[in-house]
Amino acid sequence: MAMVLRGKCAARLGYSARSETIEKALARNIIDRGWTDLGEMLKETDLLVLASPISAILDLIPRLPALISGPLQLIDLGSSKSQIVAAMKCLPESISPIGGHPMCGKETSGLDAADEQLYRDRIFVLTPFDRTLPETLSLAKELVAAVGSRLLILDPDRHDRAVAVISHVPYLTSVALVDAALHADDDLVWQLAASGFRDSTRLAASNVKMMQDILTSNRPAVLEALARAQDSLAQLAELLEQGNDAELTARLETSRRQRAGLYQ
Amino acid sequence: MAMVLRGKCAARLGYSARSETIEKALARNIIDRGWTDLGEMLKETDLLVLASPISAILDLIPRLPALISGPLQLIDLGSSKSQIVAAMKCLPESISPIGGHPMCGKETSGLDAADEQLYRDRIFVLTPFDRTLPETLSLAKELVAAVGSRLLILDPDRHDRAVAVISHVPYLTSVALVDAALHADDDLVWQLAASGFRDSTRLAASNVKMMQDILTSNRPAVLEALARAQDSLAQLAELLEQGNDAELTARLETSRRQRAGLYQ
Repeated sequence: MAMVLRGKCAARLGYSARSETIEKALARNIIDRGWTDLGEMLKETDLLVLASPISAILDLIPRLPALISGPLQLIDLGSSKSQIVAAMKCLPESISPIGGHPMCGKETSGLDAADEQLYRDRIFVLTPFDRTLPETLSLAKELVAAVGSRLLILDPDRHDRAVAVISHVPYLTSVALVDAALHADDDLVWQLAASGFRDSTRLAASNVKMMQDILTSNRPAVLEALARAQDSLAQLAELLEQGNDAELTARLETSRRQRAGLYQ
Repeated sequence: MAMVLRGKCAARLGYSARSETIEKALARNIIDRGWTDLGEMLKETDLLVLASPISAILDLIPRLPALISGPLQLIDLGSSKSQIVAAMKCLPESISPIGGHPMCGKETSGLDAADEQLYRDRIFVLTPFDRTLPETLSLAKELVAAVGSRLLILDPDRHDRAVAVISHVPYLTSVALVDAALHADDDLVWQLAASGFRDSTRLAASNVKMMQDILTSNRPAVLEALARAQDSLAQLAELLEQGNDAELTARLETSRRQRAGLYQ
């Protein structure tokens, strides 16, 4: 995000616990100035963007009041919103918070995988709530526009139920497909794995720490959506086992039509 | 396949029940000559390539003896091999058969989706058996080389168990993911569906007739592999529900490492 914001804000300040990360980000012109002391950086920060794994975001939010003296606007980029917004609601009035979730990502992470085009034309969800000041919502909208994304304003819980269905459960089926292939006990499967397997399992290569945070912070919605996918698989297995071709065709066709219309 | 064989064989003869298909294929130089009467074409055919859905291949094989007078070499391109090879074993000695499965495909079908590059650098499985003459195996190997694929010779049953794992079950999980999203009863899911959902569900857009044939002809192997994927999903759900973070991390990490090493 800092990469694509070059020239689009007064200054991009960066914090990392590791000085090598700061040095690399400065050398690549990803940030303008960098700190390994968060409190020092916050003295000069107008808008703080939390872009770490969800558990780190949840750890940091309650520590913010002790680190700041003046007002602060706060946004996070976590992939689940309910728990984070709940933590934000406990912040003092000097902090004006809003939740954010840019709907883009890669299965690679770190500065070497940084991609200035990552946000372009993607949906960027904002979840304002009663504690969000109007100027923070405005600033967050400017941020969404500056990175080239499309704005979508949502209730945090509705967001979490939807992303469980279209992101978190697909991650789990990817993991299960790789797991099932490992348990086939025949190395031939890896030799035969073609584009279908590659695409179906791409999400299984995601950063585990990040994904586990997402699953854990969105547990009820993930379990509910996963149960629906499990039901669907069980029904498909039963239709195939029974040789119920007519009903199997109907089910396959319903999903085909829906999927074919999605990405034109 | 006929498209990429231009200039690489004496002549490419094409059969379709529909004359418009023949006309289109001739106009696009995909075939050199075309027939809507299979028996007439077979009078001039050395090597017959069956490239229809599996059920049509299985229908046609027993009808071949009545359609030919001289010798014929036969290969099919069906995605499951055990049933087709079993049908080939019942053919008279004048026909020398071999099973084939090029490990490539698209979720679109028909002449308009034809792609000369489809076979390039992909694995092309051949399943010769006791009825396969040495010259037919040689010719099939030439075919694999001519379309630019990489040869892999396999036992039909082992092939079928492996493709169930890496192709047929990923199709079913794709279908189940779309089905689960449909049952979320919130149109927001389609608006939020990003690249993860797109890739995880690409296979659900496949031709239903073709996929149903594959599933039905490979039923035992598909059900066995599907049960393994279902077990894996159930275990992931249980670990998430129990909050067993250590074991969940271990499972996610095992699949991540395997998947990350697959496609470099």
